[in-house]
Amino acid sequence: MPPLQITKLCLKTSANFLYRVLHTSGGMACSRYEYVKTYEKDDSILPNVWIVIRLDGKGFHKFSKIHNFEKPNDTNALSLKNTAAVTVMEEFRDIILAYGQSDEYSFVFRKETNVFNRRAAKLLSYVTSLFTSSYVLNWSYWMENKTLKYPPCFDGRIILYPSDQNLRDYLSWRQADVHINNLYNTAFWNLVLKSGLSHQEAEAELRGTFSADKNELLFTKFGINYNNIPKIFRKGTTLLRKRVKLMEKYGDDIYRTLIVPLHDDMICDKFWKEHSELLGKYKPGEYTCTTDLSRLLIKQMENLNIGDKNEQSFDSNS
Amino acid sequence: MPPLQITKLCLKTSANFLYRVLHTSGGMACSRYEYVKTYEKDDSILPNVWIVIRLDGKGFHKFSKIHNFEKPNDTNALSLKNTAAVTVMEEFRDIILAYGQSDEYSFVFRKETNVFNRRAAKLLSYVTSLFTSSYVLNWSYWMENKTLKYPPCFDGRIILYPSDQNLRDYLSWRQADVHINNLYNTAFWNLVLKSGLSHQEAEAELRGTFSADKNELLFTKFGINYNNIPKIFRKGTTLLRKRVKLMEKYGDDIYRTLIVPLHDDMICDKFWKEHSELLGKYKPGEYTCTTDLSRLLIKQMENLNIGDKNEQSFDSNS
Amino acid sequence: MPPLQITKLCLKTSANFLYRVLHTSGGMACSRYEYVKTYEKDDSILPNVWIVIRLDGKGFHKFSKIHNFEKPNDTNALSLKNTAAVTVMEEFRDIILAYGQSDEYSFVFRKETNVFNRRAAKLLSYVTSLFTSSYVLNWSYWMENKTLKYPPCFDGRIILYPSDQNLRDYLSWRQADVHINNLYNTAFWNLVLKSGLSHQEAEAELRGTFSADKNELLFTKFGINYNNIPKIFRKGTTLLRKRVKLMEKYGDDIYRTLIVPLHDDMICDKFWKEHSELLGKYKPGEYTCTTDLSRLLIKQMENLNIGDKNEQSFDSNS
Amino acid sequence: MPPLQITKLCLKTSANFLYRVLHTSGGMACSRYEYVKTYEKDDSILPNVWIVIRLDGKGFHKFSKIHNFEKPNDTNALSLKNTAAVTVMEEFRDIILAYGQSDEYSFVFRKETNVFNRRAAKLLSYVTSLFTSSYVLNWSYWMENKTLKYPPCFDGRIILYPSDQNLRDYLSWRQADVHINNLYNTAFWNLVLKSGLSHQEAEAELRGTFSADKNELLFTKFGINYNNIPKIFRKGTTLLRKRVKLMEKYGDDIYRTLIVPLHDDMICDKFWKEHSELLGKYKPGEYTCTTDLSRLLIKQMENLNIGDKNEQSFDSNS
Repeated sequence: MPPLQITKLCLKTSANFLYRVLHTSGGMACSRYEYVKTYEKDDSILPNVWIVIRLDGKGFHKFSKIHNFEKPNDTNALSLKNTAAVTVMEEFRDIILAYGQSDEYSFVFRKETNVFNRRAAKLLSYVTSLFTSSYVLNWSYWMENKTLKYPPCFDGRIILYPSDQNLRDYLSWRQADVHINNLYNTAFWNLVLKSGLSHQEAEAELRGTFSADKNELLFTKFGINYNNIPKIFRKGTTLLRKRVKLMEKYGDDIYRTLIVPLHDDMICDKFWKEHSELLGKYKPGEYTCTTDLSRLLIKQMENLNIGDKNEQSFDSNS
Repeated sequence: MPPLQITKLCLKTSANFLYRVLHTSGGMACSRYEYVKTYEKDDSILPNVWIVIRLDGKGFHKFSKIHNFEKPNDTNALSLKNTAAVTVMEEFRDIILAYGQSDEYSFVFRKETNVFNRRAAKLLSYVTSLFTSSYVLNWSYWMENKTLKYPPCFDGRIILYPSDQNLRDYLSWRQADVHINNLYNTAFWNLVLKSGLSHQEAEAELRGTFSADKNELLFTKFGINYNNIPKIFRKGTTLLRKRVKLMEKYGDDIYRTLIVPLHDDMICDKFWKEHSELLGKYKPGEYTCTTDLSRLLIKQMENLNIGDKNEQSFDSNS
Repeated sequence: MPPLQITKLCLKTSANFLYRVLHTSGGMACSRYEYVKTYEKDDSILPNVWIVIRLDGKGFHKFSKIHNFEKPNDTNALSLKNTAAVTVMEEFRDIILAYGQSDEYSFVFRKETNVFNRRAAKLLSYVTSLFTSSYVLNWSYWMENKTLKYPPCFDGRIILYPSDQNLRDYLSWRQADVHINNLYNTAFWNLVLKSGLSHQEAEAELRGTFSADKNELLFTKFGINYNNIPKIFRKGTTLLRKRVKLMEKYGDDIYRTLIVPLHDDMICDKFWKEHSELLGKYKPGEYTCTTDLSRLLIKQMENLNIGDKNEQSFDSNS
Repeated sequence: MPPLQITKLCLKTSANFLYRVLHTSGGMACSRYEYVKTYEKDDSILPNVWIVIRLDGKGFHKFSKIHNFEKPNDTNALSLKNTAAVTVMEEFRDIILAYGQSDEYSFVFRKETNVFNRRAAKLLSYVTSLFTSSYVLNWSYWMENKTLKYPPCFDGRIILYPSDQNLRDYLSWRQADVHINNLYNTAFWNLVLKSGLSHQEAEAELRGTFSADKNELLFTKFGINYNNIPKIFRKGTTLLRKRVKLMEKYGDDIYRTLIVPLHDDMICDKFWKEHSELLGKYKPGEYTCTTDLSRLLIKQMENLNIGDKNEQSFDSNS
């Protein structure tokens, strides 16, 4: 650490302590009951490790059934989930990557983050709450003609990864998972929806089969080349923060920092070379829109125009 | 513990281990990346202590302003918050009491609960998510003509209390807090809304005053006897699970286990004698409706008729 | 908590914070490397629970063999272990009970202890180190003609018990353990030493036998009534802090606070009634020497005369 | 991780679980009290981080005074402390470096260690106990004519460092500390012992002085060039495990893995290049004795001849 930053750290540490002195003892009434406050545990996370928060949909098998999600994949439901994740990333600038597949979403905070002083419960509960809130609030935007019948919810966990390799392996693990599950689900639902098999029959048909078998089955029975299925289904969605170059009507280019959805393979090295900001000294990467903007990006830009979002967001300096 | 329960515990413990053996090593593909799973920490909570989860609204000062909450207290917003808390209590039968005031809500799990094997992150994230989800979903029911402008959210924390006295002191602490704050807010907003003072002027007027001064000010300036203000504002809301006796149209009484809102003093002993099930061997207490049912109870009964709620709820046996 | 204590707590809390402000930021050189200090985790233990530290001899099977411990029980080795435990109790006045059996020793800190601010690592390491140190230092006193061939060592763990019943059950668990093991060992070593069986043969002889069988075997084969075996072997050693009344040569009685060894049953209620100070508001109980003082007490009194021990001891006020 | 190791990991994980199944439920009597065992917390340390255990002498200011340690540095006392640290390193093959200065000693476990399944309390208590035990046992070897008047003890803490840079900074921090302290102590004790100042006077003389002032004072007043003081005093002692080449009487060289004491600067890069095994894939480095063997090495070789040490030691495979 260069000397100047050290001094800042020292001053900041002192300031934090003084703040606590003033607000904990001086500012408190020190009532008869106040001692119970001392039962709270300091749960701040070890510095200099990757912090991953993964949310999982609670009972989403039933939830997707009751709300008639399209099978094997419901594009609108995926967009809704992605929108909720974008809300979380907009709020926490220290989340450098989010990855969603099936009914789960993982958020990766950069190693150096000091948001909420790295307190585990704060981070976990806030990310979970904001994701849930955005999911319910944006339901009608994406699932227009469907009524939300009961409150969906998500549980969360925090996992710490010391090395960059650990982090890559974590994301590879989750992405390997989506491959296995989606191939199975695609085969299963084609057997059910197109061949008219019952759930039990479809299950029996697939029991003990390998990936190659399922690929073969999809191709011969349904004319589906699995590799031509949209990447969002096969690879899940990776959200990255990027400086996006937008073509302006009159003249000059305009840049906006947006959360960009990708559906690329994160297992191979290529991804990490292309987005070298992730494991290097972090700042948002560059991104050029080659085709039409996705609805997810458009929604963000609309929100940006409202413009008061930024005030609420948390970064290391707050 | 009686012998029979012990045996059950032993069997259950064995079963848990076997489950983990099968699902962790045998059932896993043991892929190249799967080792990252071992980085998850066991965060199960010490047995035999009260588990309190407290949620706090994030930036609710601004949130209430943007959404034009009535000042100093918005009855509909309080009902919305209470509805969200009821959703949480319906789901977790091991929550025996919930207490809400200002923009916070505390949930008390009975000491013996084994829900989610007492895993801290699971409990915290699930309660936070469900509360948030219900808050957003029920917004339009209580805040009819208002648009929800952005996703509200809540952070949460877990605090453990070994003794019954600790738990009572915790609740007394939160209830002493509502008294101090509400008296201040009532004086403040009357000065602003009725006397036309600016926020700064009202603040200056109240600086350094004691409770007695504020009571006096309310009475002499605005003709308000603070003790006549609705108890929900002065005491907050305590939710208890009760066997409620409902008068049936034709003949026999009918009982329903509902979450009942109270606005009573929890600091004195009387409350704990009246609801002796809380610190004793817990089962829901009895409750007789003396007046009209509140909207909160009616909503629950409507939901009960839909009837599929119970399937989702978690108790110690699941 | 009475108001005066509260105020003290508040002042103390403020003082602690100020101390940390001065010593952490102001008093530190804030050198380039000093940031590593922030990686230390606050590990303070939840207030208001019983803290039990249990030490276990590391590889004591081998250790006792190499040092020719008498079998099945070596009285001198037990006294050595008890002496080490007395050293620990003399140092930590908030340990109200210690219990030793086999190669283990448990130390019980009263719920309210604030020694080392309840920091887990401090407590664990200090108790372990002091016990070990005293064990090695006093080796020659008890094991006179034997050379200590290599450094013995002990591992330790901390276990928290919220309720008095939990604590009693813990001690009952350990004392039930000594019964089972000592009965087995007594039978085993009699078979080996008196009947000349090999270890394997003795083991085979005892396999599948119940307590009654072993009692029978001891009585019929060796004329041993197990219940007449010294209580120290059958019950282990419980150390309590007591005001001991000593007969003085000339006239007046003299009292000394000493650590008294007992070998009583802790499973039944009688023990807890006789030593009601343990679960009540703690202060050392009274104890009258009925017979000759044990060597363990004499050793303590000799040390008391040296008198500088007390200066080093830790209690809640330090 | 290469596939073979993964498989091993999987098998090992399964084995651990099965072991726990058999020993926790099946093998236990599941007595009425046994439930208390479930109150023990899993405290295993995050994988893939450096584990540092630092021990600090408890009240060593007084201890060194009572035992007449030579001032400012007692060579025999340092050797005693180093001997205790060697004992610890012999036992734990996964400790790759230990560093001692003043009355403290730090032990560094390699990131990948799995000794005691990385359980924090086990590691902490065992290292503390073994160090203490060896310290007391070897007292008479190094402090020949002095009686050990009371049991010395050490407290310990565990600190985790994710990156190699963190670890280097930690060691630099401790080594910067020895420089500051030793320079001060050298000046202080020369003023006391040679100039006849009282402790207060010496303290006053040095108050507010910088390093340069103290160097100057030592040189002008006592003719001492601080840089010529033995490195063990100025740099502390670093212990590394090395394959030591020993000249044999007749013919062939012989290699022994020994714990080698160094007194080098660890702040600069040179040290880490010379001992590149430390931050690389770890195996003991090579070391050639250029001069006479130190007593510390000779003692180890004597112990090696006894030869049963190795059986007790713990490495990742046990």
